[in-house]
Order: sequence, then C-alpha cells, then structure tokens
Amino acid sequence: MIANHLIPNLRSFSSSFAPRILHIGDVLTSSKQFSDQDVLQFSNLTLDFNPLHFDPHIARQSGFRDPIVHGILVASLFPRTIAFHFAGAVYVSQSLQFKSPVYVGERVVAEVRPVQLRQNKDRYIAKFATKCFKDREVVVIDGEAVALLPNLEIIDGK
Amino acid sequence: MIANHLIPNLRSFSSSFAPRILHIGDVLTSSKQFSDQDVLQFSNLTLDFNPLHFDPHIARQSGFRDPIVHGILVASLFPRTIAFHFAGAVYVSQSLQFKSPVYVGERVVAEVRPVQLRQNKDRYIAKFATKCFKDREVVVIDGEAVALLPNLEIIDGK
Repeated sequence: MIANHLIPNLRSFSSSFAPRILHIGDVLTSSKQFSDQDVLQFSNLTLDFNPLHFDPHIARQSGFRDPIVHGILVASLFPRTIAFHFAGAVYVSQSLQFKSPVYVGERVVAEVRPVQLRQNKDRYIAKFATKCFKDREVVVIDGEAVALLPNLEIIDGK
Repeated sequence: MIANHLIPNLRSFSSSFAPRILHIGDVLTSSKQFSDQDVLQFSNLTLDFNPLHFDPHIARQSGFRDPIVHGILVASLFPRTIAFHFAGAVYVSQSLQFKSPVYVGERVVAEVRPVQLRQNKDRYIAKFATKCFKDREVVVIDGEAVALLPNLEIIDGK
C-alpha cells in the first residue's frame, strides 16, 4: 500500500477556494511497505537477480542482517510522489545516495521538498530535496531531483 | 528481453584460465526493449501513474511524440548490469540525468564503465560512468554510480 500526503505550508491556505500552489517549505510525502512480492516482481521486470535481494547468506556476507529491497525500487517513490501531485511532470535529473538498507516488510516514507522554483516559458523548473526514511528518522536514501512541472497547482489526488 | 554482454579490454585475456578481472577501460553492457506491459507492470508496482506514460495527449503537451517509459525503470539497467557480473554488489550511489525520452518498443543499451577502482579492506569501491543509449548514439541517461564489489572477478553469467 502506498499512501500519499501533502503537508503544505500555511501560505497554501490563504484561500480555501483558490488552488493550492506549491511553495518552498512544502513537503510532499508518500509511503510504501515493501513486500517480498514487490522484490520478486521488480526482479522479474528488470532481471536484476542480485542474490543480495534473496539469499540471506550473501546478504549477511555483505553486512546486512537479511536480504534487502532494490535501491532503485525504493527510489521510485520520488518520481511517484512528484507525479501524484503534478500530472505530466517530466523528470530531468535525480541523485541518489543509498544510506541504509531497506529490509522486506519495512515501511519507507519519502519526503520531497521544493528548494528552488523557477518559471521557464510555460512551465516551471522545480528542484527538490528528496529523502526516504524508515523508523521515522533513519535516512534510507538522500538526494536531489529536478523536474519540469506543467504548473504549480497541487493536485490532491483524493 | 534483456541481453548482457561484457566487452573486456585486452588485458582481461592474458590467460584463458585465470578469472577475468575488472579493469579501467572495460565496458559492461546490457540491453532491454521496453514494452507497454513493462510500463504497466512498473506503474502497478510503484503506483506511479503519471499520465505521461499512458496518455498520448498529455505526452504531446509535454513535448513528446508518444507516451514515454518511466526514467527510473530505464535506470534499473545500471544496477542490474553491475549485479549480473558481481553477485552481492552493494549500490552506494547513482546520479541520473534524463537526456532523451524512451518510447514504448524502443531498445535501450546500458553501458557501465569502471573509472575508479579502490580496495577497501576485503571489498572494492568501484566508481562507474553509466550511460544508456538508444538508436546506437542517442544518450538517454547519463550519470555515475558507486558500488561496493565483493571482488573484481567478473562473472560471465553464461
């Protein structure tokens, strides 16, 4: 299950009738608990059968207590969070630093925070700080994304 | 279908009985043709339903001739290529610049080239230049990856 949430800053509430507009300081979030079925499906789709994701012995040899979820699968929370609130958003770049392992069954929360917003012709170039957490405060992935947004109106998707 | 190839530099052939050792100058490659089923499966797995991947009208509004494959799905070729040749490789970081769209049905070739190899205790820290191409020369994704390798012996996986 993936849940999506938007934690807008207070300026977004200046009028309850106006569309909510993305501002620096907002936090877009989503979360997902990764199952062994997710790991298997992702492996079958990408043919990434690194035994680190299946073999407890190899995982322990590599310093992990159990098999871990593919980093790129966890990172997919970032574009998914951006696209959920901005239909048609185009991904320009993403940096990913894999800080901690995600074990099967763990819930990960992705936080996407705009740090720079710039209009470019009829679109907006948005730079986001992107982080994934587990256990509330353990950073799993740290990085930055740049995306082209069709506008700054936040779709709630509810 | 994903195909995997290793284009070793000539030093790797110094003995046909010795294991092939990764060197600066080697190129690890794999390729994949992305189908609409791949896009649908990836969307269902990650819940990234950006209409850019399904809706021709939204895709054209965003400057593409057709719906495009998720960038992170294409990027999964990089860890998959590294893991194919180094079982138990641990992904440390990846940067991704999405340069050109990948349309459904297009074949993408990933090239992973070691640019720095350093021993760290009983493992190796490898920095790779990572690029995806389509139509032989069109760069789709450009970036860099760092991975911890258990050793430098290349598994051919044949």
